[in-house]
Amino acid sequence: MDLDSILNHVAEKVEPHRGSGKVANYIPALASVDPNKFGLAIATKDGSCYRIGDAQEAFSIQSISKVFTLSLALQKMGDALWERVGREPSGSAFNSIVQLEHEKGIPRNPLINAGAIVVTDHLVENGDADAAINTLLGVLRDHAEDPSIDIDYEVAKSESETGARNRSLAHFMASFGNLDNEVEAVLSAYFRHCALSLSCSQLARAALFLAFDGEDPVTGERIVTSQRCRRINAVMMNCGHYDNSGDFAFRIGLPGKSGVGGGVLAIAPGEGAVAVWSPGLNDAGTSTVGAIALEALMAETGWSVFG
Amino acid sequence: MDLDSILNHVAEKVEPHRGSGKVANYIPALASVDPNKFGLAIATKDGSCYRIGDAQEAFSIQSISKVFTLSLALQKMGDALWERVGREPSGSAFNSIVQLEHEKGIPRNPLINAGAIVVTDHLVENGDADAAINTLLGVLRDHAEDPSIDIDYEVAKSESETGARNRSLAHFMASFGNLDNEVEAVLSAYFRHCALSLSCSQLARAALFLAFDGEDPVTGERIVTSQRCRRINAVMMNCGHYDNSGDFAFRIGLPGKSGVGGGVLAIAPGEGAVAVWSPGLNDAGTSTVGAIALEALMAETGWSVFG
Amino acid sequence: MDLDSILNHVAEKVEPHRGSGKVANYIPALASVDPNKFGLAIATKDGSCYRIGDAQEAFSIQSISKVFTLSLALQKMGDALWERVGREPSGSAFNSIVQLEHEKGIPRNPLINAGAIVVTDHLVENGDADAAINTLLGVLRDHAEDPSIDIDYEVAKSESETGARNRSLAHFMASFGNLDNEVEAVLSAYFRHCALSLSCSQLARAALFLAFDGEDPVTGERIVTSQRCRRINAVMMNCGHYDNSGDFAFRIGLPGKSGVGGGVLAIAPGEGAVAVWSPGLNDAGTSTVGAIALEALMAETGWSVFG
Amino acid sequence: MDLDSILNHVAEKVEPHRGSGKVANYIPALASVDPNKFGLAIATKDGSCYRIGDAQEAFSIQSISKVFTLSLALQKMGDALWERVGREPSGSAFNSIVQLEHEKGIPRNPLINAGAIVVTDHLVENGDADAAINTLLGVLRDHAEDPSIDIDYEVAKSESETGARNRSLAHFMASFGNLDNEVEAVLSAYFRHCALSLSCSQLARAALFLAFDGEDPVTGERIVTSQRCRRINAVMMNCGHYDNSGDFAFRIGLPGKSGVGGGVLAIAPGEGAVAVWSPGLNDAGTSTVGAIALEALMAETGWSVFG
Repeated sequence: MDLDSILNHVAEKVEPHRGSGKVANYIPALASVDPNKFGLAIATKDGSCYRIGDAQEAFSIQSISKVFTLSLALQKMGDALWERVGREPSGSAFNSIVQLEHEKGIPRNPLINAGAIVVTDHLVENGDADAAINTLLGVLRDHAEDPSIDIDYEVAKSESETGARNRSLAHFMASFGNLDNEVEAVLSAYFRHCALSLSCSQLARAALFLAFDGEDPVTGERIVTSQRCRRINAVMMNCGHYDNSGDFAFRIGLPGKSGVGGGVLAIAPGEGAVAVWSPGLNDAGTSTVGAIALEALMAETGWSVFG
Repeated sequence: MDLDSILNHVAEKVEPHRGSGKVANYIPALASVDPNKFGLAIATKDGSCYRIGDAQEAFSIQSISKVFTLSLALQKMGDALWERVGREPSGSAFNSIVQLEHEKGIPRNPLINAGAIVVTDHLVENGDADAAINTLLGVLRDHAEDPSIDIDYEVAKSESETGARNRSLAHFMASFGNLDNEVEAVLSAYFRHCALSLSCSQLARAALFLAFDGEDPVTGERIVTSQRCRRINAVMMNCGHYDNSGDFAFRIGLPGKSGVGGGVLAIAPGEGAVAVWSPGLNDAGTSTVGAIALEALMAETGWSVFG
Repeated sequence: MDLDSILNHVAEKVEPHRGSGKVANYIPALASVDPNKFGLAIATKDGSCYRIGDAQEAFSIQSISKVFTLSLALQKMGDALWERVGREPSGSAFNSIVQLEHEKGIPRNPLINAGAIVVTDHLVENGDADAAINTLLGVLRDHAEDPSIDIDYEVAKSESETGARNRSLAHFMASFGNLDNEVEAVLSAYFRHCALSLSCSQLARAALFLAFDGEDPVTGERIVTSQRCRRINAVMMNCGHYDNSGDFAFRIGLPGKSGVGGGVLAIAPGEGAVAVWSPGLNDAGTSTVGAIALEALMAETGWSVFG
Repeated sequence: MDLDSILNHVAEKVEPHRGSGKVANYIPALASVDPNKFGLAIATKDGSCYRIGDAQEAFSIQSISKVFTLSLALQKMGDALWERVGREPSGSAFNSIVQLEHEKGIPRNPLINAGAIVVTDHLVENGDADAAINTLLGVLRDHAEDPSIDIDYEVAKSESETGARNRSLAHFMASFGNLDNEVEAVLSAYFRHCALSLSCSQLARAALFLAFDGEDPVTGERIVTSQRCRRINAVMMNCGHYDNSGDFAFRIGLPGKSGVGGGVLAIAPGEGAVAVWSPGLNDAGTSTVGAIALEALMAETGWSVFG
């Protein structure tokens, strides 16, 4: 398969749509991003990285970080995690609190905000948010073989300043006893991991293990068990795009996770990891152009898991 | 891969769980089924059928029929169907009406009852439910290469007699103009297709095209386009087990559809179609033993789409 | 208190608002009513009737009829009624089904559609809707001392033809076992009592007993017990205008019931019964001009129960 | 009317129920209250106070304080308050967040927790919670003609420590821009006013103006306008007991407000203010014995506003 040539086709198909969608504007650092940005990178089994467009420019990965915190929490705590967070699609928006009330503080899945906050709570020990973030950074740098990966602290600060809705979710869960640490300690870590800044190349490389049964195919390092890897992919398939998850599966057919910064991570089991970035979002917070690019990529590669 | 030997292992794993779960009891014909029944059949590319247990005993496939009506409606109407039914997980029970009110009579997906009723409405022309059912029967007999497949009319009659909740759903959608036919005409067809009686062998064979990109690998007949086949599988993955869909994807990793009669259909793209039957259900209406059997089968075959 | 003079003041205040609001248009018989119609009648203790405007023109009282069916059902069945319908405000629209699902087929109160259908079910014996309607008509004619009161059968027919939402509510409750009669028998009576046609004068007279502890002050006939009368008024206060009940209590301060035909009945305990009619409705289905008229009447009379 | 004799009858009726209901146990100071406590006080027009039982023992008035903050906020801000809080019954529990999400941070009414927090936000100027509380204390001492009225600061501290749910509500509204002050400043005032400690005698006296059109009948001081007084009573009638408001109106027929400390305030327009206290609560958080006492009082006095 000539992925370079395929990526050129994808770029052609994407071109007329550049700049469409609505850029997130709740914090200045996201609002000021050029809406015409578009990058895509594919990391494959042998460590090659196929790129197009702005694939080496760092962007705020936002909720895509939830995949890495989930993986880390499962490594650390095992299946005990599932006693405090479900794995069903919520059928609701990323920041909905309705389901939390009906289900007594147990979030539907680890990829909505409430669930990701519970996951982050698992990563924070004795209230030490800095240590949790340092561990996460170490893991990502290690996965991506790139020690330059870092957090955009200005974004993290803005997230905290505008984080009333996430504070509400966290206090709500705390009221049901579903947080071990103080709300502000958990959120301090949460806001920072959402402010991780990676390029498509770095992101695809960091997630490559998810396409190969939990083992990094380049270094041979086992990161999660094979079963756990499949399960993380299953959760991404059903819950990775909030109330747009069904449409994403329908159109693209890969497990994936979107972020409000315009990034989308998609996992093609046995093939590779794909990261795409374009800031304009659809109503459900998924990159409009990113989804078009992935749809075109699927048409050319046939990587859909569904046939 | 020695599927016969694998099926023996599956049967061993299932044995201690035989009879667990709760048999559906809202109609006599389901309530009276022996809870210890267990059958499993795998149809593969070359037309072989691997079987174990009660795989040749017909059972009420109930909601599994929704996969076939969806396929038929898409063949007949094309993507216009998606204007009247969504493709997102509902996050709710199979017969919930809450989402319908919030979303003005458009069901979340075609595999919950409300959505399947809309699909059935597409199959009924000019109020002629009998013709729609005859077409569906013809298609199933053709797919399964078995003209003996039929409806259990006693079950259909009981479904209609106890069908107040489905009547409510149908009238609700009618109030928003989302039914073309009279409610009773649509339900007459709906109750009958839910009363289809197939064995695991027949069911796996009838659905085999879904594992091979929409083309029957035995006859070479194209039934749905490749893209549409992937999309049906995607909808099954995200919505096939109501508010248990996430857990099914998590545990089994295949697109599937469960029925309250205890049947489960699972599609392993490129490998084959699996039908399992055991009457006892979990809280979400999925066969308890059927899910255990599929989990064991996945562990042996590695057919999960997620890696 | 010079009620004739007060009514003149009310008419002056109402004048600039004549024709405002939105006339119900789901059936032709309501849609064609002149939006400028306005009438108001007050029946008082000694049998006097004070009138203004179109107070002697019959209109479709619609949901106001629910007050009379409630009163009749309580006379017939006593407090057993409250096992099948609540008495709490629903916080939802008149035809919402959401609460019914969460609360297993028990409507929140007898003045939303679902609750009124349960009340009507109590009035229908052995499926005989005609007998129930004849009884109700007899009671209303007797209360109002006017044998000419009747149902507008064209409206009743239209209600039935467009009654999908109410059918849905009824089948939903039937699915929880909360209807004794067949759905269509109950609805046949329900659609007819909603099609009752009364003038403001007739309506105020028919409801006069509610202002005098359950006893008709003119004839001396006791219609309901004193306690039951207070309770009917309490239910009207909290639930009489669906999700606009709080605003009505806030602005007008009397127990009342609105109908989608533009009528509003208000009870001033110890003073009299007020019926007002003007077809244009606010978003919650209460007569816009009717509410303004009652507000003006309260300012002049001080009849608010709240001080 | 011989109120002393009536109160003796009430006490007889209440006796067999003493100690029933469930005492609030989320903070030690409430959990440790003797469940057999019962007191009732009636303040009347001429300043008399009729008492029975533990009517002079101070208890935590909790949510009853919301009536006084509402009155104060309306005096201070006028009807602008109603742009930020509704006046409809919520149909939900006191601390529900579901409606807030559906209605974008505008609470349904000022007597549920979320609404009362908005009201408190109106009372806090420039973040100065202490000043707001001092003003409120001054007003209550003035109304009750008793400078000894105070806050139980141990209760206030416990409320704050266990206040995760209220924090969640406050941050949720803040996320929609419906709080002017910092969340913790508002909650600091909110937790303190909920910790006000008054006896039945003090409470009835402090609320007496609500029974006399907004004017204190003893001192002649006008506290709120007549219209505003009626409206406060209307809000209490429809919303004063959360999802138990309809039942309270049905059984007792007076505007009222309950608190989780077991107190209930009821206003009999033109007659007087009634305060009752007994710690055991029903499922909706209203005093079980308090409601029985008020029901008995209504049977003897006929003070229901409904006839």
